[in-house]
Amino acid sequence: MLSKVYSKNVNNRSVIRECFEYSKQRAAVVGSENVFDFSIGNPNVPPPAILSKTVEEITEKFSPVEVHGYPSAEGIPATRKAIAESLNRRFGMSYSEKNILMTNGAAAAISICFRAVTDFGEGDEIITFAPFFPEYTVFVRSSGAKLVVVPADIDTFQINFDEFEKLLNPKTKAVLINTPNNPSGAVYNEATIMRLAEILEAKQKEFGHSIYIISDEPYREIVFGGFSVPYVPKYYKNTLVCYSYSKSLSIPGERIGYVAFSDDVEDADIMLKVLAGAARDMSYVGVPTLFQMVIEKCVDETADLSVYQKNKDILYKGLVDMGYHCVEPGGTFYAFPRALEPDAAAFCEKARKYDLVLVPGDGFGCPGHVRIAFCTSTDKVQRSLERFEKLIKEYK
Amino acid sequence: MLSKVYSKNVNNRSVIRECFEYSKQRAAVVGSENVFDFSIGNPNVPPPAILSKTVEEITEKFSPVEVHGYPSAEGIPATRKAIAESLNRRFGMSYSEKNILMTNGAAAAISICFRAVTDFGEGDEIITFAPFFPEYTVFVRSSGAKLVVVPADIDTFQINFDEFEKLLNPKTKAVLINTPNNPSGAVYNEATIMRLAEILEAKQKEFGHSIYIISDEPYREIVFGGFSVPYVPKYYKNTLVCYSYSKSLSIPGERIGYVAFSDDVEDADIMLKVLAGAARDMSYVGVPTLFQMVIEKCVDETADLSVYQKNKDILYKGLVDMGYHCVEPGGTFYAFPRALEPDAAAFCEKARKYDLVLVPGDGFGCPGHVRIAFCTSTDKVQRSLERFEKLIKEYK
Repeated sequence: MLSKVYSKNVNNRSVIRECFEYSKQRAAVVGSENVFDFSIGNPNVPPPAILSKTVEEITEKFSPVEVHGYPSAEGIPATRKAIAESLNRRFGMSYSEKNILMTNGAAAAISICFRAVTDFGEGDEIITFAPFFPEYTVFVRSSGAKLVVVPADIDTFQINFDEFEKLLNPKTKAVLINTPNNPSGAVYNEATIMRLAEILEAKQKEFGHSIYIISDEPYREIVFGGFSVPYVPKYYKNTLVCYSYSKSLSIPGERIGYVAFSDDVEDADIMLKVLAGAARDMSYVGVPTLFQMVIEKCVDETADLSVYQKNKDILYKGLVDMGYHCVEPGGTFYAFPRALEPDAAAFCEKARKYDLVLVPGDGFGCPGHVRIAFCTSTDKVQRSLERFEKLIKEYK
Repeated sequence: MLSKVYSKNVNNRSVIRECFEYSKQRAAVVGSENVFDFSIGNPNVPPPAILSKTVEEITEKFSPVEVHGYPSAEGIPATRKAIAESLNRRFGMSYSEKNILMTNGAAAAISICFRAVTDFGEGDEIITFAPFFPEYTVFVRSSGAKLVVVPADIDTFQINFDEFEKLLNPKTKAVLINTPNNPSGAVYNEATIMRLAEILEAKQKEFGHSIYIISDEPYREIVFGGFSVPYVPKYYKNTLVCYSYSKSLSIPGERIGYVAFSDDVEDADIMLKVLAGAARDMSYVGVPTLFQMVIEKCVDETADLSVYQKNKDILYKGLVDMGYHCVEPGGTFYAFPRALEPDAAAFCEKARKYDLVLVPGDGFGCPGHVRIAFCTSTDKVQRSLERFEKLIKEYK
């Protein structure tokens, strides 16, 4: 007599989780140093030293009742102010604390936005672009809207605008983008963002209602040389920016992030309350106090993210030199090369012969590709190359 | 173009929040020592000293990548095992870690249970008993079910069984109880729990489907002399226990709790996955790792809760001696006396003349009563008595 939807899904195992568990089993046999587990996007660099220091300072300076007490639903004003000012400095915005809602990570942030801009069960649509983070399907469905997926432009992983324009319709309430992108590593360039904005401005007028961009940006700080990540609200007013400190500070276990919107967004005067109302519906009772206090002090800090640049350089060059087809990642800690046969799962199975654990792209809405999460040691990335070499030889 | 439901509600201010803000404004005029703010249920005692010590030990002993890394969706196995074993010791259960889902506090726990035992939009009903925590209305509605409220038995704040039996029907999927109760402070005695179990056993047979008890127990550890809180799963198999460490450890800002179910619960074999599926739908990505590690070590600790007993003794005796009608609180840090006129809001308005800030019972589904949150200093509770004395004199 349990919920039909959840009962039905209990045997739907996550492919990524299955890969991760295979790696553990295999490590028990051949040793973990010999298993190249590229399955999970869990940051491998420690948080910056200042983070632990800040935790200590806060617990010394403030009473435990303050440090562990209830936060307000919107988040601590001082933390939101610090975030607003940081974004103003970095991107020339005019945010104040009133433009920031603290959230339990980016997953909560985007789910809150989905609920805020759609009406449950009225057929509202949210468009996103393949390849995309598989949880989008879950979060959009549970908000009562429909996720519409634009097929990937597999040569660039920018936007396939022809397909996008075909799918826009009066039911479109939001467009969900994720740049730098999980799983492709692609960064939407300025031309892409400008064209996206231009199309949406026109469609807003045509449909007579606002279409929000929901910009999911947990990888904003992990950007490689030669690339830059345009700040979307500078190009399109109706943007809700969803951020997480999971990757920038290497604290995915703390579940902290935010939604930011400018005063130029449609319905700006009620946006904060609408977002907070959606969070409340999902039973969120504020974001842990201690880490809000930590973020206030560490708002411009990051972990040492340089390892991802090193790993990307080695892996991308290595793969391309061997003959793999791979769009150069502009950020994140993922590469998304083409599989060497049409069935990416079969390709991943062959890769396991060399203890390379990769994730098929099918779950990301992009068959024929595989995700390589290179948030691991540079030594391991380096040592994996000879395995990829052996793998490609099988196909030659 | 924002969600209709949230846009409509932006001006629905929380009465409790309004009281709290009034208190702050008033404190600026007469000094905070002269405002008797009994509005908010925020624990005033510090967490036990061992809590900060444990945070320190964990951050010293484990690498930051472990301490701040992604937890598994169900929670850390060692933490869940420690909780299971503690409940086994205390209540003679046979839980293992497989019977525990970690959640972001009790609000998340009950919301997850609502989704797990009902089907969205199919008219499923969840019954609860007045007086009740107002957020139940929000959480049940957003799960897509209907909250059905049994009127209060205002002489005892036990269960009004006649009314309850009338409301049970084939659409009833769960019964939500909260004992010790917010706002009444009442503790359901063993006879109440036994009769509730007996009725539900019969109705399960009659209707041919399971009816779960969802037992919301954040106040389980705050129990006064002469009272005891039966452990519901000992009396009724189909019980989902929802717990929070917010009150027992005085860490409401950390948002940590759990759902526990026994192997005897209907569909026990898939329950953990169903609960985790519901949590995932709500975009919960696990519970912060650091505090899961803390709970593993502090599972049998509590803050010094004795102040609540002291405050209750002074306040309850004081009020009753003056002539107020009040059911003796068996636990929590709330008393819920009758207002001295039928309109509780008008009574609260009069109380403000004496700088007593009370919350009308209407929002708790129990008009004609007021909630007094006595999670404040004993001195303040003591000094409030002469104000209550003056207030009752107005009505004599």
